[in-house]
Amino acid sequence: MPRPVITLTTDFGEGSSYVAQMKGVILTLNPEATLVDITHKVPPQDIRHGAQVLDDVTRRFPSDTIHVAVVDPGVGTERRILYARIGTQNYIAPDNGLLTLVAHRAPPSQTIVLTKRDYWLAEVSSTFHGRDIMAPVAAYLSLGLNPVSLGPPVEDLLKKTWPEAHVEDNRIEGSVVSFDSFGNLITDITIKMLGDLVTSDSVVVHCGEQQIRGIVHTYHGRKPGSLVALVGSTGLLELAIVNGNAAKTTQTEVGSPVIITW
Amino acid sequence: MPRPVITLTTDFGEGSSYVAQMKGVILTLNPEATLVDITHKVPPQDIRHGAQVLDDVTRRFPSDTIHVAVVDPGVGTERRILYARIGTQNYIAPDNGLLTLVAHRAPPSQTIVLTKRDYWLAEVSSTFHGRDIMAPVAAYLSLGLNPVSLGPPVEDLLKKTWPEAHVEDNRIEGSVVSFDSFGNLITDITIKMLGDLVTSDSVVVHCGEQQIRGIVHTYHGRKPGSLVALVGSTGLLELAIVNGNAAKTTQTEVGSPVIITW
Amino acid sequence: MPRPVITLTTDFGEGSSYVAQMKGVILTLNPEATLVDITHKVPPQDIRHGAQVLDDVTRRFPSDTIHVAVVDPGVGTERRILYARIGTQNYIAPDNGLLTLVAHRAPPSQTIVLTKRDYWLAEVSSTFHGRDIMAPVAAYLSLGLNPVSLGPPVEDLLKKTWPEAHVEDNRIEGSVVSFDSFGNLITDITIKMLGDLVTSDSVVVHCGEQQIRGIVHTYHGRKPGSLVALVGSTGLLELAIVNGNAAKTTQTEVGSPVIITW
Repeated sequence: MPRPVITLTTDFGEGSSYVAQMKGVILTLNPEATLVDITHKVPPQDIRHGAQVLDDVTRRFPSDTIHVAVVDPGVGTERRILYARIGTQNYIAPDNGLLTLVAHRAPPSQTIVLTKRDYWLAEVSSTFHGRDIMAPVAAYLSLGLNPVSLGPPVEDLLKKTWPEAHVEDNRIEGSVVSFDSFGNLITDITIKMLGDLVTSDSVVVHCGEQQIRGIVHTYHGRKPGSLVALVGSTGLLELAIVNGNAAKTTQTEVGSPVIITW
Repeated sequence: MPRPVITLTTDFGEGSSYVAQMKGVILTLNPEATLVDITHKVPPQDIRHGAQVLDDVTRRFPSDTIHVAVVDPGVGTERRILYARIGTQNYIAPDNGLLTLVAHRAPPSQTIVLTKRDYWLAEVSSTFHGRDIMAPVAAYLSLGLNPVSLGPPVEDLLKKTWPEAHVEDNRIEGSVVSFDSFGNLITDITIKMLGDLVTSDSVVVHCGEQQIRGIVHTYHGRKPGSLVALVGSTGLLELAIVNGNAAKTTQTEVGSPVIITW
Repeated sequence: MPRPVITLTTDFGEGSSYVAQMKGVILTLNPEATLVDITHKVPPQDIRHGAQVLDDVTRRFPSDTIHVAVVDPGVGTERRILYARIGTQNYIAPDNGLLTLVAHRAPPSQTIVLTKRDYWLAEVSSTFHGRDIMAPVAAYLSLGLNPVSLGPPVEDLLKKTWPEAHVEDNRIEGSVVSFDSFGNLITDITIKMLGDLVTSDSVVVHCGEQQIRGIVHTYHGRKPGSLVALVGSTGLLELAIVNGNAAKTTQTEVGSPVIITW
C-alpha cells in the first residue's frame, strides 16, 4: 500500500508556526503520512482565493489524497466542519464556501459533518480548529478510518457565488482573479468560454486602458515587453508581458474587469 | 519502527539555500528521515523568538522527534553546541539560550556537549555549523546512535532571562512578543496568570491608547472591526481585530507593554 | 533500496500553486518519492542565480538524487529540455544555461534531449513544461526508468558566460552575486583565487566607498557593527556586518564590483 498523502492549504502565511503545529499533530498519529504544503499564502480569510487554489491544484494529486484546507474566518462560531469525497479526492474544510469550485467541477459523492470528538484532540481551542479537529481527523483517515465514523452524512455544502465571467451576445465579461509570481494576470475567463475565439484574428481583449488583438499560443508569440493574452496552464485566460511583469505595467487589481470583444 | 522525524528551525529565511544544504546532508546519511520545516522566518539572530517557536511547536511532535534549531549569532566562537533530551523530544542547538523556554517547561533529562568529530562532516566551516555539525549529528541520531557517543555530559545549559510578564497585587504587566500572519498581537501573559480573570466582567486590557473591557472566548464575541482580547491556541493572551489586522491598527511593536487591571 | 529523492528549484515564488501542481504530478506516478524544495525564490527568469543555487546545493545531496530545475523564460519556444548526469547527481532542466556551473565543476557523463512523449503528461500546455514534461520524467526516473528511454543522446549543453571574477597581476576583480537572509554580500571570488591572501595582513577588499583590511576567519573576528570580509560556507568571499546587515549598510546591488588589492 502506498504511503498516504495529506496536503495543507491555509492562510497562515509561509513559515507560520501554526502550520508546524498541525504537522506535529498529524505525524504523532501517523508518522508514515507524506505531508505536502499546497500553499499557506492564501490572503487572510480570502475564501474565494482558497477555493481557486484547491480547484487548480488538488485534481493533480494521487487518488485518495486527503486535502486539509483552513481558511476559516468563522472559527469558533457555529459553522460546520466537513469531510467531502469529490472525484477521487478527500477534503476536510470548514463549510464556508471553500469547496465551492471543486464541488462545481464534480458533485461530492459523500459529505459528512465532523461531530465525533473521538477523532479530535482531547483539548479543543476556540480559535484553531485546523490543529485541534481537522489535523487529527486527516491523520485518522490516512490510517484507514472509514469517514462514516466521523459524524452524520449531510446532503448539502455551502456554495458561495462570486461575480463570475459570463458570455453575452457579442462579448465576454470577466475579471482578474489573481496574479502569479511573474506578475501575470489570471482571469476567470475559461478556454471553454473562448471556444473558437482562441485562434480568431478579430478578437480583442480589453483590460484597463490596454487593448490586445488576438490570443497567442505562448509567451513568445510577440516581442519582449509587449502585452499578450494567452490561455494559461490551468485553462484560464491570462495577460502577460513577454519577459516582464504585467501586474505592475497594467496597474490592475483583483476584480479589475477584462472584456473580450470580436 | 516508524520513520524518524527531524525538524528544522532557523533564521535563514524561507527559500534559503542554506536550509536545502542541511537537508542534503541529512538525507545523504539517512534517506529514510522525514524532514519537517518548523520555520525559517525567525528574525535574524533573535534567540528569544526562536525559543518561543520551539516552545509553542515542538511539544506537538511525535515522541523521539529530533529538533535541529539554528539561530546562532555566536557561530565560530567558543559557544558550545548541545544535544538535550527534554520530555519526549530531542534537541540539537547552540548553547545560547535557544532552549530556555522548553527547558523551563521540563528540565532536560540528558544534556551533552557535541565534541566527537566522528559524527560531523569531514570539513567544518567556521560560519555554518548547522550544516557541518548539527545536520549530520541529527542524521546519526535518527539512525539510532546513542547520544552518549556525541560527547561528554554536562549539568547545565545556558538560560536567558528576558523581561517577562509578572503578576502584581492589582495588575498584570506583560508585553507583545510577536505577531501572527493575521496581524494578531501575541503577548507573554499566560492563561495561568489570568486565572479567573478570563471570565471576569471587570477586567480591562490596556495596550497603547487602547482599552479593552473583558476577555472574549472567540474572535466572534464582538462585532467586526472591534479590538478584542482572548486567550489564543497556545495559551497566551492575544489581541485581535475581528476580521481585521490588529498590528496595523494599534501600531504596536514587539516589546510594547500590555497591562491588565481589574 | 532507499527512497528516491527528487528536488525542485524554481522561480515560481514561495507558496506558488505551480509548485504544488508539480508535486501532485510526481506523487501520482511515484507516491514513494521524497520531495525536497531547494528554493522557489530564484528571481523570475534569472538563469544565473538558478545556476548558482544548483551549484551550491545539489552536491550536498545523496547519490542518484534527481534535481528538477525550472527557470525557463524560453518555455513554449524551440529550446530543448535535457536530462544530464553530472557527477553522482541527475538533472532535468531546460537547455538554457541553468546547468552551466554544475557542468563546469564536472563534465556531464550523459546528456539526453527529452523527446519521448510516453513519459510526459498526456496533455502538454505551452506555458508549463515543469509540470507537464519535467515532473513526470523525474517521477519515471525515480521508479528506475533508464534515461536512454527519454530521447536521443547529445554531446553538448548550452553554457552561458557571465562576467566572472578574474585574477590580474596585482588585483582580483569580482562582483556581488547575491545576498543571503542576514544581508551578507556573496561575491564570485573563490577561496582558490584568494590562495595565500586569505591569511595576508596586507590584503585590502574594496566595495563601493568601503575598504576592508584583511580577511577574518569568522564573523566574530571584529567588533559588532564593523564590516568584515571572510570566506563563507560555500567557498566564496563574503562581506558581512558583524551582527548587522551589510546589504543595507553598503547599499550595493547584484553586480556591484568587489576588488581585492595587496
